[in-house]
Amino acid sequence: MKTMLSTGLRFDGDALLILDQQQLPGAEVWLECHSPFDMIAMIKDLKVRGAPLIGVAAALALARYVERGREISAEKFEAAARALREARPTAVNLMVAIDRLWAARRVDTDAVIAEAERIFDEDVAMCDCIANNGARLIDDGDTVLTHCNAGALATAGVGTALGVIRRAFELGKRIRVFVDETRPLLQGARLTAWELTKAGIPYTLICDNMAAGLMWQGRIHRCVVGADRIAVNGDFANKIGTYGVAAMAQVHGIPFYVAAPYTTVDRTCPTGKDIPIEQRSPGEVRGAAGSFGRVSWAPRNCEVYNPAFDVTPAQFVTAFVLDSGVYTHDHVRAGALKSSSGRP
Amino acid sequence: MKTMLSTGLRFDGDALLILDQQQLPGAEVWLECHSPFDMIAMIKDLKVRGAPLIGVAAALALARYVERGREISAEKFEAAARALREARPTAVNLMVAIDRLWAARRVDTDAVIAEAERIFDEDVAMCDCIANNGARLIDDGDTVLTHCNAGALATAGVGTALGVIRRAFELGKRIRVFVDETRPLLQGARLTAWELTKAGIPYTLICDNMAAGLMWQGRIHRCVVGADRIAVNGDFANKIGTYGVAAMAQVHGIPFYVAAPYTTVDRTCPTGKDIPIEQRSPGEVRGAAGSFGRVSWAPRNCEVYNPAFDVTPAQFVTAFVLDSGVYTHDHVRAGALKSSSGRP
Repeated sequence: MKTMLSTGLRFDGDALLILDQQQLPGAEVWLECHSPFDMIAMIKDLKVRGAPLIGVAAALALARYVERGREISAEKFEAAARALREARPTAVNLMVAIDRLWAARRVDTDAVIAEAERIFDEDVAMCDCIANNGARLIDDGDTVLTHCNAGALATAGVGTALGVIRRAFELGKRIRVFVDETRPLLQGARLTAWELTKAGIPYTLICDNMAAGLMWQGRIHRCVVGADRIAVNGDFANKIGTYGVAAMAQVHGIPFYVAAPYTTVDRTCPTGKDIPIEQRSPGEVRGAAGSFGRVSWAPRNCEVYNPAFDVTPAQFVTAFVLDSGVYTHDHVRAGALKSSSGRP
Repeated sequence: MKTMLSTGLRFDGDALLILDQQQLPGAEVWLECHSPFDMIAMIKDLKVRGAPLIGVAAALALARYVERGREISAEKFEAAARALREARPTAVNLMVAIDRLWAARRVDTDAVIAEAERIFDEDVAMCDCIANNGARLIDDGDTVLTHCNAGALATAGVGTALGVIRRAFELGKRIRVFVDETRPLLQGARLTAWELTKAGIPYTLICDNMAAGLMWQGRIHRCVVGADRIAVNGDFANKIGTYGVAAMAQVHGIPFYVAAPYTTVDRTCPTGKDIPIEQRSPGEVRGAAGSFGRVSWAPRNCEVYNPAFDVTPAQFVTAFVLDSGVYTHDHVRAGALKSSSGRP
């Protein structure tokens, strides 16, 4: 497999390395992934996260597994592929990536490796197209709200939502980003803040419950978020809290954009109701834990509701910024997500 | 001064004691307040909090100061009163309470003590009336969302918003409470959860950003919150995040109630624009700290926006549940908050 480098993932010709996102921003620690089963654990522990990056990382782990054990049995390959495919039930990119390698395996090992490399390269190219398409929607002087992390850490390229922001900034637009901290796992406070600090883009960190008041004050001009899965009717799943941002943006007449690669559109999924939502551990809500420490502030064993994602209905989306172009609600209603291949 | 007992405040005839709310729910620690200046520090550190309780606690601290030093000079009294009055800029109850003692001081020391006792007793009675008025609005089988803590810990009595919930439960209504954790200081996860646990009322703790999705799913039937200050036009300030809850409730057609004593209505404040909003330390948003520990997860020194409160416009309030009765938006528009004394 060729050398591949991104913000959160590296293959140096020998080792497949993952930047442990649980340890950011406190420390930059690279972990070696020795097998698909290592990768499954890393996905489940959110060491590697972000729907596009999960797909790429799983593909590289499976391809490297095949490359190392050229004589690997069909049973072993299929068991690894199935287990990887189920590591994160909401992210459709993961399923698409594994299915592509599964199909390539019918040819030979080299086809699997070539397909994994293609998945990586495509993701980089798609991010670039998304960033270019979206940057045009951001005006000089805008303040932009984002939720969770849909940045370079979530993809093999410059990111989706944060790629749009970064490209607008690179084009010389004077922008400020409001970053939702994104409870319970704090991807905004930890990862998006880390990326924006590194890129030198001005930002202000807020608690999730502060965004609505800023919108009311007219201090947020646009919202840009990523997506974990988009149904063909335009409903989409993204990190918990996204629905509230979208609904509040609508109430305040603020444009709300979803930036994602075509691989996030699930053409087998007619509406948001068909997207499974993963429930996570109650401990995540009772406190906070990470490389920064572990604290618990709620009464022990109190009942908790902790969905990883929520579903935002299509009508709250001003436009989908895909690699293939910008699709408004009208385009989506006319079937744009059904027919477009979205490939750059 | 006579003996006075409440969930978060005690005067045993000798010592004025405050339940340190920063240490809940992990430990129940009572702190002795030796002077008005002790009380100011406790208010600033949120050891004592909740708009009604702050007013009562400040009054008792000032009355005890006068009682202990009967020959205290006018200068000393006025300096203490002024400093107490400014300990929390948003809570109008505090100002009202101090002004009442200031006026009583013109009579004599006994008048100050009697006025402080009256403030305590009135708060207990007002909570009781609010609870009775509000409980009628809760139906058997309802799920009720609340934000922050407007409970027995925030008042001298059974609480305001949580008093309504508690009374509905005591009346045999089968209810479940969704508790917003209320970042950054986690009053919901720590204090409201502690109170509901103690009272045996079923509840589910959620992150603030999960409420919108629950509303969309039809799983929240009513919202009840407290208020730190209500303008005569019905705009009100409450813990940061309240505005988002109110706006989302309106979008989803969910009744949204504000429960508060008449002392929270500021008759000198025409609209929400006239309510000053306190900005707090950036460290609160960069992490979390309390008796549970201290963690920091965001990049060091990142820029933060951290208002303690937000203002919700009157049109998002289905009804104000005051001690004197229930006032709909129409009542408020007709001047109910301007004319009503609200006294029980």
